[in-house]
Amino acid sequence: MIVVGIDPGTANTGYGVVARQGGRMVALDGGVVQTSPSAHPAARLATIHARVSELLDEHRPEAVAVEELYFGANVRSALAVGQARGVVLLAAGQRGIPCWSYTPQQIKGAVCGSGRAAKDQVQRMVQTLLSLEELPRPDHAADALAVAICHANSAPMRRALARRDTVGGRR
Amino acid sequence: MIVVGIDPGTANTGYGVVARQGGRMVALDGGVVQTSPSAHPAARLATIHARVSELLDEHRPEAVAVEELYFGANVRSALAVGQARGVVLLAAGQRGIPCWSYTPQQIKGAVCGSGRAAKDQVQRMVQTLLSLEELPRPDHAADALAVAICHANSAPMRRALARRDTVGGRR
Repeated sequence: MIVVGIDPGTANTGYGVVARQGGRMVALDGGVVQTSPSAHPAARLATIHARVSELLDEHRPEAVAVEELYFGANVRSALAVGQARGVVLLAAGQRGIPCWSYTPQQIKGAVCGSGRAAKDQVQRMVQTLLSLEELPRPDHAADALAVAICHANSAPMRRALARRDTVGGRR
Repeated sequence: MIVVGIDPGTANTGYGVVARQGGRMVALDGGVVQTSPSAHPAARLATIHARVSELLDEHRPEAVAVEELYFGANVRSALAVGQARGVVLLAAGQRGIPCWSYTPQQIKGAVCGSGRAAKDQVQRMVQTLLSLEELPRPDHAADALAVAICHANSAPMRRALARRDTVGGRR
């Protein structure tokens, strides 16, 4: 199973592509879509949508896993993150690929066993789980790999327990 | 000049198309893109993006005017509105059409002369300014016509005062 993980943001949208076969996971791709603050919002969103669409067409994942808004975000940042999330979900929706959302706590719990793990712990676990030679960088790419791992690890149980959810993810 | 106004929302995205020639304005189209709460978010966003894209291709507007988040929105509604806003801005950005954002106060001020006008006052002014036989309905379509009027009325002055802004709208 291939999962594309996304950490959405207007300036930096992290992405990570993970393949799981049995108990083994590997990273197929990872990076950040950066947009310039001097470009207008519609153009920045078009860049994010185009790059995510390319990734989905290239890897044809079984699912897209998207990081939820962090706890404590304010209204203005929620609106900006929402806009970036919107075009990411759209790219998946246009291809009929199911989307799932996970909170930062769920992701840390799935990767490190604790929802309160520190950022560098998460990065070391991502490195270990994917057998990477170095720590995953930059942060947004590491976060995106973590949400992809979170989905890849929880998907079999989720499918068994809640079959009807698998067509669309969290509503 | 033709302006497409949008009042974005996941369940209901209002749209209104206004043409201005000299001092006269007419409504070319208006309505609401509705999506089902039982559809998953990615599919709802795909519906909104497809319908807004159609509208832009049909009317080829000079600008898209989008209502900003209302004051007092909470983080969860900001995220949801942001997702819908994101795919609306994207549809404009993919076509190189400039987008502008206006707060509800700016819209009421432009349409009624007061940022604190009541909803029914705004609707009556929209009816009068566009010479409609009836009050514009439903509310989301009326709001979208109002933001289109707001932009059509403010655009000439805005172009004169802030030329460099016209390529992209509010950053």
